Amino acid sequence: MKVKVAEKVGFCYGVNRAYNKTNEMLKKDNKKTYLFGELVHNKIVVQNLKNSGINIFKDINKLPTDSKTSKVIIRAHGITLEERRILEDNFDEVIDLTCPIVSNMTSFVIKKQKEGYFIVVYGSKQHPEMRALKGSVDQSKIKITKDIHKENYKKVCIVSQTTVDIKSFKNFYTEYLKTNDFSDIIIKNTICIETSKREIEAKKIANWADKVIVLGGKNSSNTKKLVNISKTINEKTLHIEEIEELKNKDLSCEKLGILTGTSTAIWTLKELTEYLKNKYSAEILD
Amino acid sequence: MKVKVAEKVGFCYGVNRAYNKTNEMLKKDNKKTYLFGELVHNKIVVQNLKNSGINIFKDINKLPTDSKTSKVIIRAHGITLEERRILEDNFDEVIDLTCPIVSNMTSFVIKKQKEGYFIVVYGSKQHPEMRALKGSVDQSKIKITKDIHKENYKKVCIVSQTTVDIKSFKNFYTEYLKTNDFSDIIIKNTICIETSKREIEAKKIANWADKVIVLGGKNSSNTKKLVNISKTINEKTLHIEEIEELKNKDLSCEKLGILTGTSTAIWTLKELTEYLKNKYSAEILD
Repeated sequence: MKVKVAEKVGFCYGVNRAYNKTNEMLKKDNKKTYLFGELVHNKIVVQNLKNSGINIFKDINKLPTDSKTSKVIIRAHGITLEERRILEDNFDEVIDLTCPIVSNMTSFVIKKQKEGYFIVVYGSKQHPEMRALKGSVDQSKIKITKDIHKENYKKVCIVSQTTVDIKSFKNFYTEYLKTNDFSDIIIKNTICIETSKREIEAKKIANWADKVIVLGGKNSSNTKKLVNISKTINEKTLHIEEIEELKNKDLSCEKLGILTGTSTAIWTLKELTEYLKNKYSAEILD
Repeated sequence: MKVKVAEKVGFCYGVNRAYNKTNEMLKKDNKKTYLFGELVHNKIVVQNLKNSGINIFKDINKLPTDSKTSKVIIRAHGITLEERRILEDNFDEVIDLTCPIVSNMTSFVIKKQKEGYFIVVYGSKQHPEMRALKGSVDQSKIKITKDIHKENYKKVCIVSQTTVDIKSFKNFYTEYLKTNDFSDIIIKNTICIETSKREIEAKKIANWADKVIVLGGKNSSNTKKLVNISKTINEKTLHIEEIEELKNKDLSCEKLGILTGTSTAIWTLKELTEYLKNKYSAEILD
């Protein structure tokens, strides 16, 4: 069995930054450190942080009793302004590890709203990044959607969730413009380049391989996108989050491709390649 | 014969401003006044100004010999920066009567070029407004076209000649976006609202009438657009610039519609309605 691993693997810039800074803090600081929600969409990474001593709480209405003497970390996807206010009012210190690419998108939306633009975001309302965005801007002047609507506005600014795929975004905005009579239009591709590059690689690897494994969080938006892209080309695509999921599966084939999400740790990938070497005498290609 | 005249007739704002200011100057000033090119695309209006004492020259390389003691007027469509420089260097005084809607479009293009956008203009390269625009901006970062091209740029700003029709502009920019992978897009409808309103009226009148007369310059872009719109709906559409052109034509019908271009003077329209009253006992509807 020959195994080709995508070139772009391991944490992306934003996840790496959030993960490293959190670990640094856990090492050097004796103050108790909390994390509001999951730092990233990957349960192995989150478990690893728990093992290093982080405490997670998920409900903003149920703050830890010792918050006044503790630190709290804002996760990579960001949070709403209201949530930030509550954290700032109740914790000794707030560390913002929102991904800079997400922060830039939010700042751009705030700026354009102030200039009088109605904002249309191509994204999923329920994604944490989108919930954070909506809760950080004027909610009366934004629509987060994947469907086409007829709008009453003349000035419109169209952006994207950072983890959507470029082709769908392009289809989305061209359809939006066809359906509406805007007179002043701004369209900005706010997709994370890192995730775009992984998409391009996903196509190549799915074409080359007999079978594809996508390694990443089951609730990770960018991982699911890689799964979809790969599946369209190669129906023998398997999405796993942990190596245990492979135990009862027969992966025998000539050419196996591996893709990973942006919040999949390099050590989880290493574990996968070791497993393949041991069980299938796999040769990992350069 | 019942005659319905469009509500929007006579000079538009920019033509009215240029015509009135030129006339004021001719009345109160004893300095010789020149006009570089035609003030507007209407030979009756131009002839009228000639009768009032204006002197026209068309070649920037053949300036009047008395330029140093004379005034020169910049026409409503604007001129290039180079032409402006020559006028400023050679005349005693330069009066800029460029239509403010055209000036605003030019300023917008200059601003966006400075911000790093490649400019795509939906327009006709040969139109004076477009020649003036091209000659006033960085020519290496602009394309004036009615065709779709594949571009090498990521940041693009799409605008329109002020006299094109909105539907064609919309088709143009949606096709442009489909063909290209821009990541930062600005689209601004820089069409003159006055001409858009006349288009809407043209459709109504062409639908109502048995025959339509479009009164306006044979080389006027906005007049030709009204002719095209009317002809699509009503093939009995006649484009005339002067009443004389009607002398050998039989206009007999129940319902006659009249449209005019934005540089057609109200007195020419009046001459037309008088002609119809006298020859066909026409009733002019309110």
